[in-house]
Amino acid sequence: MPVTDHEFQFIVHATSGGARTGTLTLPHGTVETPVFMPVGTQGTVKALSPADLKSAGAAIVLANTYHLHVRPGEEVVAQLGGLHRFMAWDRPLLTDSGGFQVFSLAGFRRVDDDGVEFQSHVDGGRRTLTPERATEIQWTLGADIAMAFDHVAPGGADLAASRDALERTLRWLQRCSRRHGELTERWNDGQTGRSFQLSNGPSFRQTLWPILQGGTHRALREEALQRVLEMGSWTGLAIGGLSVGEPKPKMYEVLEALAPRLPPAVPRYLMGVGFPEDLVAAVERGVDMFDCVAPTRNGRNGTAFTPEGPLNIRNAAFRTDASPLDPTCDCEACTTYSRGYLRHLFVAEELLGLRLLSLHNVRYLIRLAEAMRAAIRKGEGALAAWADDWRRRYTQPGTA
Amino acid sequence: MPVTDHEFQFIVHATSGGARTGTLTLPHGTVETPVFMPVGTQGTVKALSPADLKSAGAAIVLANTYHLHVRPGEEVVAQLGGLHRFMAWDRPLLTDSGGFQVFSLAGFRRVDDDGVEFQSHVDGGRRTLTPERATEIQWTLGADIAMAFDHVAPGGADLAASRDALERTLRWLQRCSRRHGELTERWNDGQTGRSFQLSNGPSFRQTLWPILQGGTHRALREEALQRVLEMGSWTGLAIGGLSVGEPKPKMYEVLEALAPRLPPAVPRYLMGVGFPEDLVAAVERGVDMFDCVAPTRNGRNGTAFTPEGPLNIRNAAFRTDASPLDPTCDCEACTTYSRGYLRHLFVAEELLGLRLLSLHNVRYLIRLAEAMRAAIRKGEGALAAWADDWRRRYTQPGTA
Repeated sequence: MPVTDHEFQFIVHATSGGARTGTLTLPHGTVETPVFMPVGTQGTVKALSPADLKSAGAAIVLANTYHLHVRPGEEVVAQLGGLHRFMAWDRPLLTDSGGFQVFSLAGFRRVDDDGVEFQSHVDGGRRTLTPERATEIQWTLGADIAMAFDHVAPGGADLAASRDALERTLRWLQRCSRRHGELTERWNDGQTGRSFQLSNGPSFRQTLWPILQGGTHRALREEALQRVLEMGSWTGLAIGGLSVGEPKPKMYEVLEALAPRLPPAVPRYLMGVGFPEDLVAAVERGVDMFDCVAPTRNGRNGTAFTPEGPLNIRNAAFRTDASPLDPTCDCEACTTYSRGYLRHLFVAEELLGLRLLSLHNVRYLIRLAEAMRAAIRKGEGALAAWADDWRRRYTQPGTA
Repeated sequence: MPVTDHEFQFIVHATSGGARTGTLTLPHGTVETPVFMPVGTQGTVKALSPADLKSAGAAIVLANTYHLHVRPGEEVVAQLGGLHRFMAWDRPLLTDSGGFQVFSLAGFRRVDDDGVEFQSHVDGGRRTLTPERATEIQWTLGADIAMAFDHVAPGGADLAASRDALERTLRWLQRCSRRHGELTERWNDGQTGRSFQLSNGPSFRQTLWPILQGGTHRALREEALQRVLEMGSWTGLAIGGLSVGEPKPKMYEVLEALAPRLPPAVPRYLMGVGFPEDLVAAVERGVDMFDCVAPTRNGRNGTAFTPEGPLNIRNAAFRTDASPLDPTCDCEACTTYSRGYLRHLFVAEELLGLRLLSLHNVRYLIRLAEAMRAAIRKGEGALAAWADDWRRRYTQPGTA
């Protein structure tokens, strides 16, 4: 059975201003959008189990191609049944291409048109990622959605550097797309090699999404979109190279420039975002999907998202506070423990604290997306009103 | 309603050789013996949640008075509803008295007949524990079972040092017992102060168990038992000062000397033990209760107990091993993940690995106790036969 685009269907149910809510159908399940994807960099969302993620309502998880390639290696993952079985996550998965990692990790890096030579953060060894290799690795891992290998320019890159990275990203997209097409055809013809078969099982299907680059240069972003759309009929489009240090208004400007030009029936994924306020702002500007390490990284640092803004649980004010972390939340941390106990776990450096705050923050962002879906379904103007209320509460002064 | 001993009832159901199986009734539930108690030193069993502990079948958890006194302080625990509510554990709890900790921690320590002055491991500040204070702190924490404050002589202490520690332990037991009786009476009369009330709620009941000392000196141990039994009618008896570095046969010798002299209708708790082979040997010698950090500490180090002996999951042999950690085990780690994935979690230093191996090891010891209970119920000779089989398998050479 050939892999066709309608196997990766996206249906928009309602809009409110520029925001949309819809359903994305993927081989391992459906995803209601807007959606926040927790990040499982090394094949595990830090401190959380798949059961935790399901209890938090996670519909799709992101894993990192670069990290899994370096350790344990995609062939190991394939021999252990592919990424879904490896990490015991039976819902949809998306793998990042490794582009962002090789361009943002410290250490040696050499870029040419062929690809990127870089230094492994694990053993210091030199390795090379090319568009073809990044595509093959992701195919071997077997996520539902693979991302094209892109050249990410640093935040604040000038026009020439952004143009250079964009042109390379577009050339690489063509090569990723060609290689992904070959692998799909081979798979359909039953000619795929051993590791691919082992990794993915008989029901394996995967789609490839391009990443739009162009820095904060509006004209470049619009050109990138135009040229990417001319290159194929995509089941999803990612916006990369934002939230990398540029001022927030710049990010909003790019999103606003892209929104009217993006095909309505294709899901839009804003990579590496975010924090609660960024999620709300981006959904208002038409974004459907997000990923970020913020909820788990902040959770491990003792910072919890709440409707009244972030709080740091180590704060001495919580020492004998018997109230829940966030009284509006239904997660295990908020329904089981007092702030005083959670503070004790962090002060005493107990592992359970890392888990509980990570779980809460993931649940917080998933509930935030749920709330936005509900507001969007109420129709025109409803999301804007909801967002104003939400911002007023989240940014009010004088809270913890 | 006065607190009477029959509220802390122990009924022996069956014996096999020197081993027994029974039911211990405590205010927060019943405990089938032999039983392994996971250790929640700081009010949390490291890396595990109460739900994890229930999934592992834990019936009772131990917490450490010394650690909770130093941080967050027993008054904080009391203000947050007492230890059960603080750590969200609604089954029985036992608190160690702090004796073992103040005698085994590094740093300044001054012992006299009044008590022990020691240095906090958290802030270096000098603090003093006396039998009365240790009893009051445990009362404030509100566990089902409190332990008497004892003088623990170092492993291998000579007769004079062991005698000295024993005499002090007996004098201190009298003071603990007196103070515990006063607190109980005050409670029954409704005169207990604010923090005690807050900590424990209306249904608070607590029993105090003595700790038998005497090092590896058989005569001292027998004398200690005799004198402790003369001092009161106890609902449980703990054997302390073993598994502190002495040769294993010495420990078995002491257990064998005590066994015929211990009152049959009183549960026997061997403190700080242990490892699977020690559990089996001690149950054969009449012990009913155990606690040890071994399952969680070993789990965090990547060592898993299995019926074929311990294995270290970091071993390169497990890199692509798709089989479960322990195919006979029903825990989340063994029913969800491959050895290859668990190895990856440890090699990649992911927090989930610490949790999963801790959970498995706790479940392993609880299943081991379950298996011994079943064998004992089969009657005379059955446990010995089971133990021989178990040891043959656990110590077989040539496994991981």
